[in-house]
Amino acid sequence: MVNKLEIIPITGIPLVKEGDNIAELIVVAAKRAGTEIVDGDIVVIAHSIVSKSEGRIVKLVDVQPSRFAGNLAELTGKDPRQIEVVLKNARKIVRIGHGVIICETFHGFVCANAGVDASNSGGEDYLITLPENPDKSANRIREEIKRITGKEVAVIISDSFGRPFRVGSVNVAIGCSGINPLNDIRGYKDLYGRILRSKIVCIADEIASAAGLVMGEADEGIPVAIVRGLSYDRTNIPATAIIRDAKDDLFR
Amino acid sequence: MVNKLEIIPITGIPLVKEGDNIAELIVVAAKRAGTEIVDGDIVVIAHSIVSKSEGRIVKLVDVQPSRFAGNLAELTGKDPRQIEVVLKNARKIVRIGHGVIICETFHGFVCANAGVDASNSGGEDYLITLPENPDKSANRIREEIKRITGKEVAVIISDSFGRPFRVGSVNVAIGCSGINPLNDIRGYKDLYGRILRSKIVCIADEIASAAGLVMGEADEGIPVAIVRGLSYDRTNIPATAIIRDAKDDLFR
Repeated sequence: MVNKLEIIPITGIPLVKEGDNIAELIVVAAKRAGTEIVDGDIVVIAHSIVSKSEGRIVKLVDVQPSRFAGNLAELTGKDPRQIEVVLKNARKIVRIGHGVIICETFHGFVCANAGVDASNSGGEDYLITLPENPDKSANRIREEIKRITGKEVAVIISDSFGRPFRVGSVNVAIGCSGINPLNDIRGYKDLYGRILRSKIVCIADEIASAAGLVMGEADEGIPVAIVRGLSYDRTNIPATAIIRDAKDDLFR
Repeated sequence: MVNKLEIIPITGIPLVKEGDNIAELIVVAAKRAGTEIVDGDIVVIAHSIVSKSEGRIVKLVDVQPSRFAGNLAELTGKDPRQIEVVLKNARKIVRIGHGVIICETFHGFVCANAGVDASNSGGEDYLITLPENPDKSANRIREEIKRITGKEVAVIISDSFGRPFRVGSVNVAIGCSGINPLNDIRGYKDLYGRILRSKIVCIADEIASAAGLVMGEADEGIPVAIVRGLSYDRTNIPATAIIRDAKDDLFR
């Protein structure tokens, strides 16, 4: 039996500062918006507010670009200090072109500019970087929501990533807790009784994208959404499980 | 003001045969499931039932594999006849490896095996291929829903695609009608008043992924879901707009 899902935007979360308790902000805002958190909710959180609460903001004036960063800045038309921050967050450059540096982040995610972003960072002079360990952040927030509300939820920390082959970004999972991000249906039977042979669904990315529909990045930006009504495997598996090994990847 | 969304699975759609009227099947099943279609609904349809209604099923015994298909079959461990069907649906091979042929389909989508699939095709001896023109199919179904119900909806035809860098497939849009699949927020301001410079969101893929959460491919497979409550740009732009030009693509 498959039920109807709800995607509930959590409005009214204030601008986040270093040290803020994200779980508390979410619980308070949800209550004020008339939405008590319930068991089985999946709380999707834009990484930007997690990064801010963890102090993962870089002030451009504090950055000394290397010569290598300077060269890449010329190639891409970006600020050398920004490139320096990108390189600090990368362990590998995958491609350079069209004003963008596709990197493998130090966590292993492949994305533009190693996830370093100037949007919603707090102004022109600041950059926002991905959390140091998004799975750990998700764990911490999940446990804190449990402590405050007594409810068992899953937490997904999301970012919007561009993709090869397709125009536009979509929201994906970069951290998770209380959920298995991958739904392995190999061995199940299709409608006609044929065994499915090669089917793993990245349910965490589908959940992040669903939440992305109500989150948005512009000035009415809503950094949190709850996905309610989904049955999911509650095994606690990190989002790093979504990272495809370079050796299994035809595009690295 | 951002509202709550609903993702409503449409259960009870019978196995589809060539010539079936998909719009009618959806309207009838929705009504029986207690969900009347309303203005602004986005109807997401698994391509498999659209392909079936359009006769896009290939019987393996009817296929004569070429020598080239035979070679690729040895490389990938697949049936040469299946490879022949893949090649017929491709205009370019992008990568070969790990038992899969990543192709550019004749429409321009980059995906495994040119979208040719043995799942839910009707048994071991059949393959299901993508619709000839998924945007046209979406248009036709949208107009037909309008004719039957009087309601203005958007239609998205979806398939589940694997991605580089990330494990698992996600549901994406391969055809659409009554919606602009891309949400261009360049020029909008972020939370701190900074102008967003490079932000196009592929809302059609996020919608397809949201619907994917209730659709599934195994034997309880539900081929249709309605996304309700989303405000979207109703400009009728085809899903081919999502295809990134090879010249703008760092991975082709």
